[in-house]
Amino acid sequence: MGNNWKQIFSKAAGSAIPSPVRELLKVVNQPGMISFAGGMPAPEVFPIEQFAEGTELFKTQGSQLLQYGTTEGYNPLREFLAKWTSPRMGREVGLDEILLTTGSQQVLDLFGWAIIDPGDVIVMEDPTYMAAINAFHNHGAEFASVRMDEGGMVVSEIPSLVEGLRKQGKKVKAIYTIVNFQNPGGATMTLERRKELVDIAERLNLTIFEDDPYGYVRFDGDHLPSIFSFDKAGNTIYAGSFSKILSPGVRIGWVSGNKDIVRQMTIFKQTTDLCSSPITQMLTHEYCRKGYLDAHLPNIIGNYRVKRDAMEKSFQKHLAPLGFTWVKPQGGFFYWLSTGTIDSNELAKRALDKKVAILPGAPFCVKPEAGLHAARINYTFSTPDVIEEGVTRLVQAIQEMKIPAK
Amino acid sequence: MGNNWKQIFSKAAGSAIPSPVRELLKVVNQPGMISFAGGMPAPEVFPIEQFAEGTELFKTQGSQLLQYGTTEGYNPLREFLAKWTSPRMGREVGLDEILLTTGSQQVLDLFGWAIIDPGDVIVMEDPTYMAAINAFHNHGAEFASVRMDEGGMVVSEIPSLVEGLRKQGKKVKAIYTIVNFQNPGGATMTLERRKELVDIAERLNLTIFEDDPYGYVRFDGDHLPSIFSFDKAGNTIYAGSFSKILSPGVRIGWVSGNKDIVRQMTIFKQTTDLCSSPITQMLTHEYCRKGYLDAHLPNIIGNYRVKRDAMEKSFQKHLAPLGFTWVKPQGGFFYWLSTGTIDSNELAKRALDKKVAILPGAPFCVKPEAGLHAARINYTFSTPDVIEEGVTRLVQAIQEMKIPAK
Repeated sequence: MGNNWKQIFSKAAGSAIPSPVRELLKVVNQPGMISFAGGMPAPEVFPIEQFAEGTELFKTQGSQLLQYGTTEGYNPLREFLAKWTSPRMGREVGLDEILLTTGSQQVLDLFGWAIIDPGDVIVMEDPTYMAAINAFHNHGAEFASVRMDEGGMVVSEIPSLVEGLRKQGKKVKAIYTIVNFQNPGGATMTLERRKELVDIAERLNLTIFEDDPYGYVRFDGDHLPSIFSFDKAGNTIYAGSFSKILSPGVRIGWVSGNKDIVRQMTIFKQTTDLCSSPITQMLTHEYCRKGYLDAHLPNIIGNYRVKRDAMEKSFQKHLAPLGFTWVKPQGGFFYWLSTGTIDSNELAKRALDKKVAILPGAPFCVKPEAGLHAARINYTFSTPDVIEEGVTRLVQAIQEMKIPAK
Repeated sequence: MGNNWKQIFSKAAGSAIPSPVRELLKVVNQPGMISFAGGMPAPEVFPIEQFAEGTELFKTQGSQLLQYGTTEGYNPLREFLAKWTSPRMGREVGLDEILLTTGSQQVLDLFGWAIIDPGDVIVMEDPTYMAAINAFHNHGAEFASVRMDEGGMVVSEIPSLVEGLRKQGKKVKAIYTIVNFQNPGGATMTLERRKELVDIAERLNLTIFEDDPYGYVRFDGDHLPSIFSFDKAGNTIYAGSFSKILSPGVRIGWVSGNKDIVRQMTIFKQTTDLCSSPITQMLTHEYCRKGYLDAHLPNIIGNYRVKRDAMEKSFQKHLAPLGFTWVKPQGGFFYWLSTGTIDSNELAKRALDKKVAILPGAPFCVKPEAGLHAARINYTFSTPDVIEEGVTRLVQAIQEMKIPAK
């Protein structure tokens, strides 16, 4: 053994794909680097003082903060979330219908544990969240995908896709969709498609994984009800996160859904990390309880709206003349930039030489060809000046490739 | 679907075993309940004030606390641990040889991801940590086990066991051992057996998972070098935890070992929870950096030694006359009580009626019969008075069973 560990690695290890985002996090801190690569909140929107007020709890409930918690999560925070999310969810979910997790990334893994046998098929939208692909892939999932357009996942393509797969003997179990300001595509699923998707899932006996980390970060227009809210049959689980509306550092996500699936995910959480940190759960609850979550959200949204507008302006100025295209996102963190004939892997490499980090589209796609000429560009992490400078550097990288974009 | 989620659960879900410990955590908070069931630190040994001092970081590094961290973990804490553990590890491990995790429970899951294919065999000691059995089981592991005695795992039984399994065509990949003050057995592996185990692993081309959450909580005698320290071939990974020496609420464990396996576990951490909380990692580092970890450890040890002595006294007084037997632990959290002819499942149920929670032995055993007449008793969570009262209640439960213990 020794240096031969690789010889005994599992099959899952042999096929696991390192996350380009996580890997890039290690280089984006280099001096002078402009990062459009991550999905990181802007440091300046963290409500540091308000959140830190909660550390007063160490004086009154210190031993509860430092002790093990239940696997289900800190009850007052579960109760808060059940209420707080009720407008979106259509009702207040019960305590046996909500589980707190170590970031909403853990919801993906726990869903994989509970639902996926090797060879089972999950229907994705193309492009989609790469760490969802990777998480389900590690559990042995196979994938089928449908297109996205400005109205989100093209759900009308699902029935024939699923029926075709079932004719081949495949077991199709779930549809995964990022419903608002999709990562990386930027689009939001229309109200009509949400209802249609619920009908399709019920008719085809499928479950729906509604992932919504960005949904509360809306710049323009009105919030839409969740898919969950239309699903009277209980086929939908909804995953939420504090990462984008408060802090990723708290590592708190949640999943709401039918009590049987929530219970099964809880059992798997017992073996994967026992419980999430009571420290961050209780500090987060204190922040929420005081009304800070609602009070501060407009600051986050305002900050990101300015940056979205700045990137839109820089794109119009520098990239429109090159023939690049995009859809202006109404919320969230990302642009999905169509790079014409330019290979986005090559562009991302050259951009890094110019000290601007972007992510190529292919790793976000079930069908990699859907992302070969696209890139994900984050605007929340940089100030408007830095955005303009970063897009300028991107143009330099494009020009050095000497390939005219169409 | 709806209420029929169970119909599409994965095979892993069908065979996953809820943790009796985690389930009990929900009842032990009932009024009047005495809990010998958990593995919880005593609230009074938490260094609340010293730990809370670290919250000053919110004033100077607030945005780093609230942001995503790297999957590998907060570098200064990794560096601290590499140095702090070096006496036990025989050398200072490199940064590419250490990964921080969301509690050391996560090390078990990540090891499962990296190493275990369904049907692979892990050699355990009987009894052993139940959530290790469950974690590996979820990854499809099969188990073989050897006995424990006062000197820990009876490692001399391993070669013939493994050779027998290999003749049957089984793939045996790793040996799992809790090396110090074993959970639940209480025993510590002797120095000679540590060396012997390293030789066995090298000869049989096996890896070793050295789990050591309790090792720094030693009441009597001197610390022993880790198995890792003797393993020049690099077949051993070592898992440590802050749960018992500082706080389980921080949810920080670590794994040290060969860089290939550490890297592979890091890749799986990307899909399971992205990163552990920078908040708890940075506060923990601040606590360690100031020397509080070393300064406070004697307080924890002193507190638990008094309780261990109290339980020893109560056992001698009440249980010795009934023919129960046990080994006095030199550290850690647990007694492993042999209950003679009494079925420990039945005893645990009746004890709960008397408002004292203990854990029956069977779930801790690969061969359940090894635990049918044994129970795990925690002494760290209760004061000496409560310990005496709890043992008295246990005796009442035993007497009502009207079965004479032998």
